Amino acid sequence: MDVENKQVKSYKKIVVLGGDGFCGWPTSLYLSNLGHDVVIIDNLSRRNIDNELEAESLTPIQPMGIRLTAWEEVSEKKIGFYNIDIAVEYDELLQIINKEQPNVIVHFAEQRSAPYSMKSPKHKRYTVNNNLNATHNVLCAIVDSGFDIHLVHLGTMGVYGYGTAGMKIPEGYLDIEVQTETGERVEQQILYPTNPGSIYHMTKSQDQLLFHYYNKNDNVRITDLHQGIVWGTNTRETKLDERLINRFDYDGDYGTVLNRFLMQASIGYPITVHGTGGQTRAFIHIQDTVRCIQLAIENPPHREEKVMIFNQMTETHQINDLARLVSEITGGEVAYVSNPRKEAAENDLHVENNLFLSKGLEPVTLDEGLFQEVTDVAKKYKHRADESKIPAKSTWTKEQQPGIPRGLTNK
Amino acid sequence: MDVENKQVKSYKKIVVLGGDGFCGWPTSLYLSNLGHDVVIIDNLSRRNIDNELEAESLTPIQPMGIRLTAWEEVSEKKIGFYNIDIAVEYDELLQIINKEQPNVIVHFAEQRSAPYSMKSPKHKRYTVNNNLNATHNVLCAIVDSGFDIHLVHLGTMGVYGYGTAGMKIPEGYLDIEVQTETGERVEQQILYPTNPGSIYHMTKSQDQLLFHYYNKNDNVRITDLHQGIVWGTNTRETKLDERLINRFDYDGDYGTVLNRFLMQASIGYPITVHGTGGQTRAFIHIQDTVRCIQLAIENPPHREEKVMIFNQMTETHQINDLARLVSEITGGEVAYVSNPRKEAAENDLHVENNLFLSKGLEPVTLDEGLFQEVTDVAKKYKHRADESKIPAKSTWTKEQQPGIPRGLTNK
Ligand SMILES: NC(=O)c1ccc[n+]([C@@H]2O[C@H](COP(=O)([O-])OP(=O)(O)OC[C@H]3O[C@@H](n4cnc5c(N)ncnc54)[C@H](O)[C@@H]3O)[C@@H](O)[C@H]2O)c1
Ligand SMILES: NC(=O)c1ccc[n+]([C@@H]2O[C@H](COP(=O)([O-])OP(=O)(O)OC[C@H]3O[C@@H](n4cnc5c(N)ncnc54)[C@H](O)[C@@H]3O)[C@@H](O)[C@H]2O)c1
Repeated sequence: MDVENKQVKSYKKIVVLGGDGFCGWPTSLYLSNLGHDVVIIDNLSRRNIDNELEAESLTPIQPMGIRLTAWEEVSEKKIGFYNIDIAVEYDELLQIINKEQPNVIVHFAEQRSAPYSMKSPKHKRYTVNNNLNATHNVLCAIVDSGFDIHLVHLGTMGVYGYGTAGMKIPEGYLDIEVQTETGERVEQQILYPTNPGSIYHMTKSQDQLLFHYYNKNDNVRITDLHQGIVWGTNTRETKLDERLINRFDYDGDYGTVLNRFLMQASIGYPITVHGTGGQTRAFIHIQDTVRCIQLAIENPPHREEKVMIFNQMTETHQINDLARLVSEITGGEVAYVSNPRKEAAENDLHVENNLFLSKGLEPVTLDEGLFQEVTDVAKKYKHRADESKIPAKSTWTKEQQPGIPRGLTNK
Repeated sequence: MDVENKQVKSYKKIVVLGGDGFCGWPTSLYLSNLGHDVVIIDNLSRRNIDNELEAESLTPIQPMGIRLTAWEEVSEKKIGFYNIDIAVEYDELLQIINKEQPNVIVHFAEQRSAPYSMKSPKHKRYTVNNNLNATHNVLCAIVDSGFDIHLVHLGTMGVYGYGTAGMKIPEGYLDIEVQTETGERVEQQILYPTNPGSIYHMTKSQDQLLFHYYNKNDNVRITDLHQGIVWGTNTRETKLDERLINRFDYDGDYGTVLNRFLMQASIGYPITVHGTGGQTRAFIHIQDTVRCIQLAIENPPHREEKVMIFNQMTETHQINDLARLVSEITGGEVAYVSNPRKEAAENDLHVENNLFLSKGLEPVTLDEGLFQEVTDVAKKYKHRADESKIPAKSTWTKEQQPGIPRGLTNK
């Protein structure tokens, strides 16, 4: 096979929770390719949500069985697979951990769409119930198993909220000064105070408290990656065979902003900017996501160390600028639609990401990757697009309007 | 009836979640007696936990039906009752809210014992699942119903953790200064950073994030009462008829420290102090709890106001001093046992509680109430005590020892 096989310090047994998902699948292949022994756990709930929403990945993703067979053919490496719901099937989760005895668990297995989490009471409740029980069960099972397992979790930049008073967002912790009753000023370090913007983001803030507690009480070693919005589709591994292709979501619920823009432009649909487009967000390419996970695995915290928090992003952009950029590459037209979210119309965003850079991350930049994404993915699979799935119909409150371009109906 | 009927500003429809519990029952009677229209929701899970632990309230509590009949006989007032699990039966909860259209919901319905929450993976998981889904369902149903309902929630002083660097614990929020990228110092107000000491306390920190979010996104009016350890048993209302008696827990899981000391002394069991006894904790008498709930109901936040947080406590004491005090009153002997919890051996605790004091709370103090508690409750019902239930057997980690006095066995 033609994938460069990087040297790794030591081979590990790694369980990837949510390994069928957009980030989890390329991560599993990447880690397997590095020589690690990878086992996936996933209940395929994301595919069921596709059924519920009557939406589909733009790219033709294969069933798990075909994905795993293709990987074995291409790489001569096996990846194991268990279909269980980690939020519900605790005993099964514990059994798998006891049997596989992983050194590392990478945890992607949560409902990750903010609009989906706001669709209805049912969706709010599902997100809270699924995400909190999933994360808590993993922590509880790690302690229950008695093994010293390093947990790597995917969090989001969105926990910080986007009003940070001109401050550079630090990596997880904030040093503050408080005044004692005797008038002295004392330094304290606190978890950076969060201000989540949706039910989904809120569950990630709540996850932080779970990590803090299990780290403090049981010395569980944890790395929490506060990830920006992931763009791009494929990695070196998923490009090796079409059966390994990664998902590309463009629907109003799961499509993330940049992928939506690319796909809208490719099929001649307006590039839909919510509100003024003055929102600034942090981004990272999927190829860098998998590399960051590797770096996190190779740099675990020590047994008595607090939760390690990295900001996993490489660039920040204003939504307006992104729309303009995509419009320039594709000739697509930009349409301003009403913002279905409740958020500040404009914000600055300055983020520290020194930890990953210091460990050798060399980011894929928008300049390089964007054009390729348009030709290799968006244009190539545009015949599979269903326009009616594009509008963002889920609103943050009953009073708000969905994000539908003028003249197009809300089907 | 001989209960003084205080003037209230306006009569309200009030739903009390967890109204069969130690705080919820006397609160329901107190509010009903004030003239409010009270409806209780409770799934009686606390009574089932008594069955599981093979433990019982020292005082003989009656089934709900008898309690409610007795109240009607004594007061000529009716209290409604629904037996549903608010963490699970969302549709039923919403139906009740739509039908009863309460102005206020008082939310006590959570698993509230720290030792119970640490007993085993099953108990940890139950506590997280029950408490977070319960609180989230209530918030979601309030928004879903479309009514402007004031939610009063019982939180705990324990979320703050007990290492506060000599600072006075403020009521919920902390003003901090952060430095911008241009070097300016900007004031920001944040939720006081929590440092919970058990799975139970952690769920209450997570509740705070739920409140913050629903307040921000949906303008739900919320008062969060950070309550100290409640002591005492009866209130004016529960004393009116023995069938109305409140519960008194003394077992190693649900018994809170002061009630346990009183009861241990009364039956000639050693007064068991965990560790050095250097821990300082905040206290409030049950009579003041019900009065604080009234004050919270009468002083709701406005529709656009942030979550109101009160510290609901009246005194702080070191555990050692309490043990000495109880020993002096009763002649009981103090025994130092190993601390089953993971916590600082000693701590200071200074708490702001100006909000309630400024609204007219006149606290019952330990000096007045303690002796009466010994004679009216602990000695009166000591024939019902089961000594084998006293030791605190639940430990915070597998390595720790239960709190059992020397010479007594761990049955
Ligand atoms: N995609 C992004 O832009 C982005 C940005 C920041 C953070 N993240 C985080 O990264 C993680 C992965 O995101 P993604 O884009 O790959 O999402 P995804 O939905 O594509 O993948 C999540 C996977 O987890 C599985 N899963 C969910 N609940 C489960 C359960 N209870 N038991 C077993 N499996 C379960 C799903 O079936 C799915 O395959 C998420 O936690 C997300 O919050 C993603
Ligand atoms: N007792 C204290 O010292 C103390 C101190 C600080 C805070 N608090 C808080 O006050 C509240 C009440 O405490 P308490 O001592 O009365 O506890 P309790 O256990 O006696 O009462 C809680 C009641 O809620 C009910 N309940 C629990 N989960 C439920 C669910 N899912 N659906 C319906 N009903 C449910 C139980 O059956 C019980 O009757 C708790 O939230 C607790 O955290 C108590």
